Amino acid sequence: MTELLLTGGRVLRPDLTVERADVLVSQDSGEIVAVDEPGALDGDDELDAESGLVIPGLVNAHTHVAMTMLRGLADDKPLDAWLREDVWPVEAELTPEDIRAGAELGLVEMIRSGTTALSDMYFEVEEIAEAVDQAGMRAVLGFTAVTVGKDEEGARADLQESLDVAKRLDGAADGRIKTTFQPHSLTTVGEGYLREFVPEAFDAGLSMHFHANETRDEVTPILDERGVRPLAYAEEVGLLDGDAYVAHGVHVDESEIDLLAETDTGVAHCPASNMKLASGMAPVQDLLDAGVTVGIGTDGAASNNDLDMFDEMRDAAMLGKLAADDASAVDAGTVVEMATANGADLLGFDSGRIEAGANADLAVIDLDAPHLTPAHDLVSHLAYAVRGSDVRHTVCDGEVLMRDRTVEVFDEAAVRERAAERAAALVERAED
Amino acid sequence: MTELLLTGGRVLRPDLTVERADVLVSQDSGEIVAVDEPGALDGDDELDAESGLVIPGLVNAHTHVAMTMLRGLADDKPLDAWLREDVWPVEAELTPEDIRAGAELGLVEMIRSGTTALSDMYFEVEEIAEAVDQAGMRAVLGFTAVTVGKDEEGARADLQESLDVAKRLDGAADGRIKTTFQPHSLTTVGEGYLREFVPEAFDAGLSMHFHANETRDEVTPILDERGVRPLAYAEEVGLLDGDAYVAHGVHVDESEIDLLAETDTGVAHCPASNMKLASGMAPVQDLLDAGVTVGIGTDGAASNNDLDMFDEMRDAAMLGKLAADDASAVDAGTVVEMATANGADLLGFDSGRIEAGANADLAVIDLDAPHLTPAHDLVSHLAYAVRGSDVRHTVCDGEVLMRDRTVEVFDEAAVRERAAERAAALVERAED
Repeated sequence: MTELLLTGGRVLRPDLTVERADVLVSQDSGEIVAVDEPGALDGDDELDAESGLVIPGLVNAHTHVAMTMLRGLADDKPLDAWLREDVWPVEAELTPEDIRAGAELGLVEMIRSGTTALSDMYFEVEEIAEAVDQAGMRAVLGFTAVTVGKDEEGARADLQESLDVAKRLDGAADGRIKTTFQPHSLTTVGEGYLREFVPEAFDAGLSMHFHANETRDEVTPILDERGVRPLAYAEEVGLLDGDAYVAHGVHVDESEIDLLAETDTGVAHCPASNMKLASGMAPVQDLLDAGVTVGIGTDGAASNNDLDMFDEMRDAAMLGKLAADDASAVDAGTVVEMATANGADLLGFDSGRIEAGANADLAVIDLDAPHLTPAHDLVSHLAYAVRGSDVRHTVCDGEVLMRDRTVEVFDEAAVRERAAERAAALVERAED
Repeated sequence: MTELLLTGGRVLRPDLTVERADVLVSQDSGEIVAVDEPGALDGDDELDAESGLVIPGLVNAHTHVAMTMLRGLADDKPLDAWLREDVWPVEAELTPEDIRAGAELGLVEMIRSGTTALSDMYFEVEEIAEAVDQAGMRAVLGFTAVTVGKDEEGARADLQESLDVAKRLDGAADGRIKTTFQPHSLTTVGEGYLREFVPEAFDAGLSMHFHANETRDEVTPILDERGVRPLAYAEEVGLLDGDAYVAHGVHVDESEIDLLAETDTGVAHCPASNMKLASGMAPVQDLLDAGVTVGIGTDGAASNNDLDMFDEMRDAAMLGKLAADDASAVDAGTVVEMATANGADLLGFDSGRIEAGANADLAVIDLDAPHLTPAHDLVSHLAYAVRGSDVRHTVCDGEVLMRDRTVEVFDEAAVRERAAERAAALVERAED
């Protein structure tokens, strides 16, 4: 049995207290074995956490990791125009190799900024799964089905593929990969298809991940056409019958917040994307007060433009206060929990907290930095001052993914070079 | 004559195009001598900008640099309670040595994140000036006068000190330090004092820097008591008669935007602080459309909680879109200009653009990073993806302040240690 000891640091406990402690993890079980006072534990290998803060690996609850290929390609446009004019034409040119390259790039970026788990929506999911397997991370993956603009055969093929991929890949990478069934959104998948395929997905034991209420333009047509709010429509077609979480949930009213709480449907909140696309402000404190599980996601790199969950925690706290018109809303401890334990809950992983028996998914922050001095409150620092580049080591499933800022699971320079070359060629193809 | 050549990189030009070029700067004049194609120029010393992007040093248009001592001490509170319950009691215990230590810490953080100039409001200004001198940076400094809660003698002493400090320190550090007269805000300095001292300050050739319209609570009392908006009142008492800029300018209506434009009064926009204190959203695009010069500031580290101007550019772009309900508002190029040329305009320095004759205030970004790959658009990266830790070299007035991530003008570890010790002792004193 190989055991790794994180030694010499301070540790963030599930109750958000910080104490000096060592953390012993098993590389066989992938779990935390013990957390004890400094010097009390022994391991076969050590990871030096001196001057460091050991935290749960961060959970990116909603992203499109391969979209790193489009980073900075089109900014400063609203969601609809951005998708139709820029994103979709380029995405139409993406090859499986491009998606593999983009996924690897995004995973390297995540590892470097302390993220150990992600929930992804995209296509060519096998490529993404192989990249996640190599990265040593945890992920919830799926194929995102869209039926608008497709004939019946094409539409049914999309939904069938979403089902098939979810069944095929569930449990891959020694259980580090789970899957969800993924109708893209309530306005991009037709009602009949939802009514047919959603129950089938739940019958197969699958969870559901879809975009909802991201912009006002997604609310108005449903309200106009059906006379009900989008999430009431989602309930009607069965989307909230099982284990489900929605991405965004920006424009939700009180009735929808109640519905999310009643149906135990989670929300993956994406503050940076919601600001950058001027989508709006999600009522995060109201969601939390109602008992809804809210995680935090970066969304894709094309609407962010990075995958740094520390940025995202800060954005979630700040935007949450603005949305609530209350500086005490969505406080530091809350966003730390959202990015760790809550995110892990959404994804269905026993991660996000440092205690014996939980998954050994960890990040070690180097506190010896001017912007983290003085250290009046380390939870405040995690929410407001730490950035991804302060992460010294990243561990997932007991394995070291990054040690002393060197990524061990990929040849980082090669990943960057391959992605850069493929991205340049992709844009050339799309412009032709 | 000693000349330094920044070689091998790409250069951001004033029109926001990027080209491969070398930059030659004079350490005697502190100015940029020439920008020319790679290999065309020679220097006495070189700074390797290979794989790098050379940009103007960033300008932090509103901060309280010594407040790094309070970083993370009190979060998640609205402005008024935060000031009265947390900030002011601790500030009352600050010694000159504390302020020196906090200023040095903040300046090291700025240098590490590519900032070369700041506009500061605080007290014990000599200490801050000495720290700025040692840092080799440019700054606009001043003593911030508050009259509420003081008797007439105390109030007059405050305003006199603001005048005296501004006169005494203007041109210090070989001209790298300028000063402003600083009535704290329209609600914390009495009308009589403003009417008396403001004309005197303008007569002495001083500029003006004060907080205005940061929260609704600053607008309502003035409107209720005087029947005019705060900036109309500011005009009445003479505050807009000369060279002036206001910090925040969040709750400004159309008439006030016009007034700012007519009087050529600038705004130092502080997006992170405005979000964190739930102060509101400044109408930045409207201000820009009206022709107002808008710079970007971090505000103090206690309401941010870092001094990273890349974070702040990103926040400015994102919050600007949300405020305008338009994803095309406050675009990438705009925030880059706000943080460079516009900020330099506000402060009155000939910096913020890379061309012969301008101040040699520069930062070199290392582009070899996963989160900056691919490189479809480097201006987009500056606004949305670069973080302070990507800065490799920082140059101000032709001198190298940081080379290859090593700060050359301070013993960084000693600065951190001193600040940490003093901050801990400060909190103990304040709690007694």
